[in-house]
Parts: sequence; C-alpha cells; structure tokens
Amino acid sequence: MKILHHPNRNDIHLSSVLYALSDPVRLSIVDRIAHQGEQPCSAFTTPVAKSTLSHHIRTLRESGVVNVRVQGTQHFVTIRQEDLELRFPGLLTSVIQAYKISMNED
Amino acid sequence: MKILHHPNRNDIHLSSVLYALSDPVRLSIVDRIAHQGEQPCSAFTTPVAKSTLSHHIRTLRESGVVNVRVQGTQHFVTIRQEDLELRFPGLLTSVIQAYKISMNED
Repeated sequence: MKILHHPNRNDIHLSSVLYALSDPVRLSIVDRIAHQGEQPCSAFTTPVAKSTLSHHIRTLRESGVVNVRVQGTQHFVTIRQEDLELRFPGLLTSVIQAYKISMNED
Repeated sequence: MKILHHPNRNDIHLSSVLYALSDPVRLSIVDRIAHQGEQPCSAFTTPVAKSTLSHHIRTLRESGVVNVRVQGTQHFVTIRQEDLELRFPGLLTSVIQAYKISMNED
C-alpha cells in the first residue's frame, strides 16, 4: 500500500498553512471536509482539471492541513483537525468562518 | 502628495489576505505593527533587500491588510484593524496568536 508523506505536527509551519489556505479551490476543499468529514478526491467538484486538483490536494497535505489516505485507487482526504488545533489553536476555525462570510456575499 | 491605492473594505478577499500573511517576513511586519502601532518602513529590520521589503509592504497593502500613509519621503504602515475585524472577525487575531506560538519555538 502506498503511504504518502505527511509532516509531523511540530513540523507544520504557519506560513505553509496560510499559503495552502490562500487559494479559493483549496479553501473550498477544506471547507467541505471540515463540514462533511472524510471525502474521496472524486467527490470534489471543482472547476479545475484533475491534475490541478491533485496538485491542490498535495499542497494541502504537504503543509499539514489535510491527511490523505490511499485505499486501492482512491484517495480519501480529511482535515488534520487535532494536529492543527494543538499547533495553532482557533486558526482553522476562524479561516473557515471567514470563508463562510465570503461565500455568503457571492 | 502621493496617495497609494488601497482596496475598499468589501473588496478585501480572504484568499488575498491569507496569501499576504503566508510569508515569514510579511508576518513579522504585521506582528510588529499589530503590537507597536504605526511604523515607518525604515523601522522594519528584516533580512531582505530594501526593494524586497517594498514589495512585501505592497503585497500587504494591495490585499487590504495594511494601510500605507506617505509623508514626505517616508511611508508609514498600520494594520487595517477595523476593516479586517468587520470583514473577517477574529481572523487576524488568530493568525497573530499562531505567529507568537511559532516564534516561541525557535
């Protein structure tokens, strides 16, 4: 079974997390799994090509924002809620709240 | 007097704010003016060239994170605290708190 690299909790850096969250597509992915729990990559209906989506998921994984579990040919994505909360308390919650505000304006 | 462009409060976008905050030098600038109030650009002792510093300040200004006031040959920088708080409540506070945590580890 293929195991993807994830940074340890203490190697999660604030600037990388903020960068990972600074893209509208990545924000929409994070918002979805924050509300609905683990999702297969195929569940994300974004306006981008499959390879671009893979790149976005990789950016989120390498920054420490999400965990990606490989099962057969599918990749399942969850938020690293506990790690992020222990590392930077309240940060993800405030970003998701800000995302909700920005979405309600459109 | 030269007046620099600043986005209106409602034109401040979450992804741009997070991108502006996703760089360690820009984070250090924001942290400093958040704690010490308005500062001239010359007060920022960063390990980057003057032109790079100008670029960082511009990124912060164009995203809506800071206000830059021109007085003679000096540029004075403040956080757009009220605008950011009204736009995305609690976001900047949680980022600055996370920055403090990450700094205490070094």
